[in-house]
Amino acid sequence: SRQIRALRGTQLVCRGWQQEAALRMLMNNLDPEVAENPAELVVYGGRGKAARNWDAFEALVNTLMDLGDDETLLVQSGKPVGVFETHPRAPRVLIANSLLVPHWATWEEFWKLEQKGLTMYGQMTAGSWIYIGSQGILQGTYETLAECAAQFFGGTLKNRVVLTAGLGGMGGAQPLAVTMNDGVALVIEADPDRMRRRLETRYLDRQAVDLTHALQEVEHARKVGEAVSIGLLGNAAEVLPELVRRGFRPDIVTDQTSAHDPLNGYIPAGLSLEEAAKLRQSDPNEYVRRAKQSMARHVEAMLAFMDQGSVVFDYGNNLRERAREEGVARAFDFPGFVPQYIRPQFEEGRGPFRWVALSGDPEDILKTDQKVLELFPNDERLRRWITMAEQRVQFQGLPSRICWLGYGERAKFGLAINQMVRDGVLKAPVVIGRDHLDSGSVASPNRETEAMKDGSDAIGDWPILNALLNTAAGATWVSVHHGGGVGMGYSLHAGMVVVADGTEDADWRLQHVLTTDPGTGVMRHADAGYEKAQRVARERGVKIPMLDGEA
Amino acid sequence: SRQIRALRGTQLVCRGWQQEAALRMLMNNLDPEVAENPAELVVYGGRGKAARNWDAFEALVNTLMDLGDDETLLVQSGKPVGVFETHPRAPRVLIANSLLVPHWATWEEFWKLEQKGLTMYGQMTAGSWIYIGSQGILQGTYETLAECAAQFFGGTLKNRVVLTAGLGGMGGAQPLAVTMNDGVALVIEADPDRMRRRLETRYLDRQAVDLTHALQEVEHARKVGEAVSIGLLGNAAEVLPELVRRGFRPDIVTDQTSAHDPLNGYIPAGLSLEEAAKLRQSDPNEYVRRAKQSMARHVEAMLAFMDQGSVVFDYGNNLRERAREEGVARAFDFPGFVPQYIRPQFEEGRGPFRWVALSGDPEDILKTDQKVLELFPNDERLRRWITMAEQRVQFQGLPSRICWLGYGERAKFGLAINQMVRDGVLKAPVVIGRDHLDSGSVASPNRETEAMKDGSDAIGDWPILNALLNTAAGATWVSVHHGGGVGMGYSLHAGMVVVADGTEDADWRLQHVLTTDPGTGVMRHADAGYEKAQRVARERGVKIPMLDGEA
Ligand SMILES: NC(=O)c1ccc[n+]([C@@H]2O[C@H](COP(=O)([O-])OP(=O)(O)OC[C@H]3O[C@@H](n4cnc5c(N)ncnc54)[C@H](O)[C@@H]3O)[C@@H](O)[C@H]2O)c1
Ligand SMILES: NC(=O)c1ccc[n+]([C@@H]2O[C@H](COP(=O)([O-])OP(=O)(O)OC[C@H]3O[C@@H](n4cnc5c(N)ncnc54)[C@H](O)[C@@H]3O)[C@@H](O)[C@H]2O)c1
Repeated sequence: SRQIRALRGTQLVCRGWQQEAALRMLMNNLDPEVAENPAELVVYGGRGKAARNWDAFEALVNTLMDLGDDETLLVQSGKPVGVFETHPRAPRVLIANSLLVPHWATWEEFWKLEQKGLTMYGQMTAGSWIYIGSQGILQGTYETLAECAAQFFGGTLKNRVVLTAGLGGMGGAQPLAVTMNDGVALVIEADPDRMRRRLETRYLDRQAVDLTHALQEVEHARKVGEAVSIGLLGNAAEVLPELVRRGFRPDIVTDQTSAHDPLNGYIPAGLSLEEAAKLRQSDPNEYVRRAKQSMARHVEAMLAFMDQGSVVFDYGNNLRERAREEGVARAFDFPGFVPQYIRPQFEEGRGPFRWVALSGDPEDILKTDQKVLELFPNDERLRRWITMAEQRVQFQGLPSRICWLGYGERAKFGLAINQMVRDGVLKAPVVIGRDHLDSGSVASPNRETEAMKDGSDAIGDWPILNALLNTAAGATWVSVHHGGGVGMGYSLHAGMVVVADGTEDADWRLQHVLTTDPGTGVMRHADAGYEKAQRVARERGVKIPMLDGEA
Repeated sequence: SRQIRALRGTQLVCRGWQQEAALRMLMNNLDPEVAENPAELVVYGGRGKAARNWDAFEALVNTLMDLGDDETLLVQSGKPVGVFETHPRAPRVLIANSLLVPHWATWEEFWKLEQKGLTMYGQMTAGSWIYIGSQGILQGTYETLAECAAQFFGGTLKNRVVLTAGLGGMGGAQPLAVTMNDGVALVIEADPDRMRRRLETRYLDRQAVDLTHALQEVEHARKVGEAVSIGLLGNAAEVLPELVRRGFRPDIVTDQTSAHDPLNGYIPAGLSLEEAAKLRQSDPNEYVRRAKQSMARHVEAMLAFMDQGSVVFDYGNNLRERAREEGVARAFDFPGFVPQYIRPQFEEGRGPFRWVALSGDPEDILKTDQKVLELFPNDERLRRWITMAEQRVQFQGLPSRICWLGYGERAKFGLAINQMVRDGVLKAPVVIGRDHLDSGSVASPNRETEAMKDGSDAIGDWPILNALLNTAAGATWVSVHHGGGVGMGYSLHAGMVVVADGTEDADWRLQHVLTTDPGTGVMRHADAGYEKAQRVARERGVKIPMLDGEA
């Protein structure tokens, strides 16, 4: 089957860098180094796709190649549906993926519509063309575990064991994130191919032959303080209960099986991969029933670990919700990772900032690494991350970097990158974007907006305002999606990407959109009553009419 | 309690006309002539509000008065939550109302969140500040009947009889909409108060003393071609079967009794209003049983008319569904009004275009009336509407007009209005907007997107693309709402307003946004496989990448 790989270098096939950037990122999302299943246009996260089908992909490519500097392409769930004249500072591409009228916002309805060829699942960054491989999730997982270590284990995971499952597109980052924090990881994975892939990329150190050997290796590493990650082939819904029975005592327990999708994601207990694939075809309802029952057993085991003193948290795959539906009343007794570890950062507009070198030259990224350290010399966590990332992260597709930056910092760094492009320090323009999982861009009551201070978890206005404002403020492309990460019905979220092509116009775009974008995060949290957000708004000049009864 | 009324004339309290327009329209929505319950900020349609509460209203006013020409105000469900620097061609206001993450998109959850002060119900045009009173429903009914006349009666209802029932909040527009189309209306209404009210406002011409006289008057008017509406006190479930028995031959049969609510809306046959009220209290189940039985008889009579050659359609009150539940197997043999009469117009981007004179001077509207007739001299339907509207529609709040225009026409007329402002023909700028019920701006599977050709009724991407694109194309304010018209969970929809202030910049805005906005409607219907939409796209140059396999 066909192989997609983004163009490199400074030769344009489009009519400008803004369009070229969209084209290269679309193609980069489908690069075999990046995508989980490029033949089916699947990038990551279950069935998260970059384009609806191959015809739509072709049409996207052709339309982008032809797109003018004052035109805007509309993409409806992975299919190009219109081109309209707008203006140079408008986005070149506007994307809406997987949205359903709420009463119909279920997987059943979605599959029916997907079957008819009317929609596609965009996940978060797959359908918005800013997925960069597992580095993105590695950074998030690293930060989450570092924060957990700070809160519970004196700032390090040395001599600590993290038990988790799932070595897929995102979950595969877990073992390396643990060892980067000096800890021991035991990771359960049902699919040998996934396991092999993580071993090949050195995200996972080694694979245990069976459960007994795995436990021996883990306990040894814990004792001697070795940072090591160990994979074990098995089904989490079988292995975790067995570990409880054996009296195993992990320090931290979490999970990244693709529980958000009970038909195409989670493997039910008691089935081999082949049997699961067969049942999925022959009796989807029975498959889902078994998957959800397994998730209930899985969560019960996690609760048992919690009861005996492990730090347990949900990693945003909606596992708790499924278990609750299956009658596990205490499913939400352990917290989501967002309120526990991420929200304090969201309050100051901090979130997963990422950038990609369109030159294709790794040198360009190394130069921006130096630049970001230079700009924020007192940020120790940043220094540690960048240093380790340079050692351990293999680029996938176009070279890229990610780090967490807050309100003010993003615009500052974005302008600095643009200056480097302008000065010829970098060989070609740079794409700057972020995950939809960010400070002001997502409503997801079981994950990013779980347990908001004012109870506004389910309010869906915020991501829409984020997308509208970024469209008004100079983003190169903007996307609104539904269901990414947690599945149909459970989230609304928005993305934005902006291109630093070295022009004055890009200065304007970067200055504005890298202010509005994290600014909506500060605003959303200030409105919800978070004090740090309110302080940040006051100190850094985010205008909020009803803060302090100013208006 | 306080009385709100929009400022008139050319003196600005804001820093520009774009902001001033938003301010005046917000206030106009709460004018006692316009709003149903201004004391509670309720504009129309149940609890559709213009601002979340009075504090939020004050803050909106103050923020709009202070808003710069390169700033954008964000409004989250009726509350101003942020002000960001954007650029002059960006919208001055971006609004998201009543949106909930789909899994939580129910009335129960909504009222809980509203109770906490976190949201408000925006309906369609209430929370987006472009409601103009009952002219809107009159025009919609007029267009529906005009389209029916075009499809079946050579473009006029002259010498034609429309039989219907219901003279309530929306149904009361029926008699006038029929006579505006030169037809004869026979309207059955059970409640003498409703009848009296419609006679007082001259929406209904006269009331017949009994069925025999009603038929004599109707047949006379049909013969001589008199445009007249006749009310008859009675129950539709009794009168319609009797009319069948008597061999009456209406040309069109429809219904706007409140059949959507079988307990509080529809009056069962055989009961006086007082008896009905009593039974509703004492035995609600028996009430509903009788109401549904009556609806079955009602629909059977409509089917009998259909069988003998009448044009019969449902006007969105769910009457057919109730009858089917009662065993009327053929209930859905006659169509709903949207697929039959509205969609063919949506295919060419036609929809409810409206404009408001910020001067407050009715003369300004009369001049634009002349202008629209001048621009489209061959549009008979338009001429008849404008002429009748001038005679029969009383302005509410700021003088305004509504008519249906399609792709191409809207931009042409918008530019002409701007020219009139520039030339001083009009005394002040004009606000141009529309209902959210429009060609490309709504996803609502029980109403606007019922029975789409490709089954895409529940796809929610389209209204979001509409809003994003209008934001990129120069709208003055843009809104995205949830639930308006059909309730929580059942619709997603977007609005846009643009101000013709006589400037060159407004020329640009009008040209672009009045092209993108109906353009998304043509695009959405072309994508769904509607041939007229595909033809319109080809003929009028709407760029659709995958149409004709062009890309
Ligand atoms: N909130 C966040 O930011 C966040 C971050 C990371 C992951 N997640 C969630 O974690 C989940 C995983 O994401 P992904 O991209 O890695 O998905 P993926 O589908 O690529 O990988 C899931 C992996 O789990 C394995 N698996 C499925 N069922 C299993 C079982 N019963 N036992 C053992 N292994 C099993 C699969 O073989 C696969 O390798 C998703 O639900 C995702 O939304 C969320
Ligand atoms: N889908 C749409 O866009 C659309 C547009 C207009 C109306 N509608 C539907 O039409 C219906 C009417 O709307 P409304 O706002 O006028 O409602 P309403 O409740 O204000 O008025 C209904 C009227 O019907 C009368 N009535 C009830 N039962 C009767 C009977 N058996 N015989 C004679 N008269 C009877 C009532 O006395 C009342 O005057 C609603 O169901 C509404 O949803 C839908």
